[in-house]
Amino acid sequence: MKILVTNDDGVYADGIRSLVGALRDIGDVFVVAPNRQRSASGHSITMHEPLRAEKVDFFGMNIPAWAINGTPSDCVKLGIEALIKEKPDLVFSGINRGSNLGTDVLYSGTVSAAIEGAMLGLPSIAISLAYNNEWNYTCAANFSKKLAQQVYTKILPVDTLINVNVPNNNEKIQGVNITTLGIRKYKNSFIERIDPHGEAYYWMGGEISDEDNGEPTDIWSVQNNYISITPIHFDLTKFEYIKKLEEWNIKL
Amino acid sequence: MKILVTNDDGVYADGIRSLVGALRDIGDVFVVAPNRQRSASGHSITMHEPLRAEKVDFFGMNIPAWAINGTPSDCVKLGIEALIKEKPDLVFSGINRGSNLGTDVLYSGTVSAAIEGAMLGLPSIAISLAYNNEWNYTCAANFSKKLAQQVYTKILPVDTLINVNVPNNNEKIQGVNITTLGIRKYKNSFIERIDPHGEAYYWMGGEISDEDNGEPTDIWSVQNNYISITPIHFDLTKFEYIKKLEEWNIKL
Repeated sequence: MKILVTNDDGVYADGIRSLVGALRDIGDVFVVAPNRQRSASGHSITMHEPLRAEKVDFFGMNIPAWAINGTPSDCVKLGIEALIKEKPDLVFSGINRGSNLGTDVLYSGTVSAAIEGAMLGLPSIAISLAYNNEWNYTCAANFSKKLAQQVYTKILPVDTLINVNVPNNNEKIQGVNITTLGIRKYKNSFIERIDPHGEAYYWMGGEISDEDNGEPTDIWSVQNNYISITPIHFDLTKFEYIKKLEEWNIKL
Repeated sequence: MKILVTNDDGVYADGIRSLVGALRDIGDVFVVAPNRQRSASGHSITMHEPLRAEKVDFFGMNIPAWAINGTPSDCVKLGIEALIKEKPDLVFSGINRGSNLGTDVLYSGTVSAAIEGAMLGLPSIAISLAYNNEWNYTCAANFSKKLAQQVYTKILPVDTLINVNVPNNNEKIQGVNITTLGIRKYKNSFIERIDPHGEAYYWMGGEISDEDNGEPTDIWSVQNNYISITPIHFDLTKFEYIKKLEEWNIKL
């Protein structure tokens, strides 16, 4: 099994190191990851600047690894279409430092990289670790290895990928839940500051004010110490509303 | 009606100028747009740098306008949560220079800005103009005015927004189609070049190799000179696959 691994925390992050450390037991791993932190990059791609692919030593693991001056989605595209000779069997993105739950998946570089993998026709998984005082990637890495083997033997629908969130509380994990995406909203999103020249600037911040975090959701599952697995897809069409919108009878 | 207008081509682009020129006839317009070209920025947001909001003169139109050193989604968030006193009634993103069709909507800053508006609970519209030798925004701008009035009197579902693509061929437009997103794929995505120091770099390019551009799709509609209106939503859950994934019986 050939596995392309990427992330959005950058090629030197602890999370991708743990993931690759686990996946190399079960396949040939290729790392194509951003050369720096790229959190919250969503599904952005780099069209107006050229991309560079720098061969790097990946924690002495002796596997092919490139650091890219682009986004996670750039890494997947460039890896599959330019850097790796044979098409991989699986795209794995993570382990992200922090959960990617509910509506937040749209902002996530980690999840967008896996979406890009699915758009290119490959089985794809995103995995993220929720924060809880410390960062211990061991459980998430071991689970990734098991999950990769299962995904490899099943056939996902062409437009579907898997988003995994692992509670960071290894001893207390209750099991695995198949979930829907919850809705995560924020309040007090911006903090205004004044610079030494008297000009205002704004930090994006905000406190989570979760909504819809009931039982089938990913948010509920992680809060209750279950590993959450959500099947997601990239067709944004709201099919149920097509007929209704036709009834609006919009004219030129 | 109070309308927040943004785009991804930047605050000084012709498309947003045309859009605002039309919408100011029917409401109070506020412009909050990137201070530069931000195409293909997807749903990225700026969390690790502060945002600046510079008051600018918007083509002498005497309307409140800010240029932001962030992405289209940043603009919508910052506009609604920090810059504009009262919540707008509508978010309008565009007119984009170039279509945003099919799978490409995920890369689009224009569409992501409208998704952000919907995530913040507001009726939201993205509008883009397909290229055809020249750029004539008149038809798209006039249509935007009519559409804004219709959306204002109807109630969209909370998770749903509207993605509009206008063929750039004003005389030949056949009418308005309610559509689904097609699938747009690319081949030969990267062009490799060698710099004067002998190092490789890569330009994202690629030719479109459309698939699934049959009749109900947005791609077919624009190709056949119809204005395409697609209802889209931001819940990526693949509900149909939940049960199937449960049958995988994934264990820790």
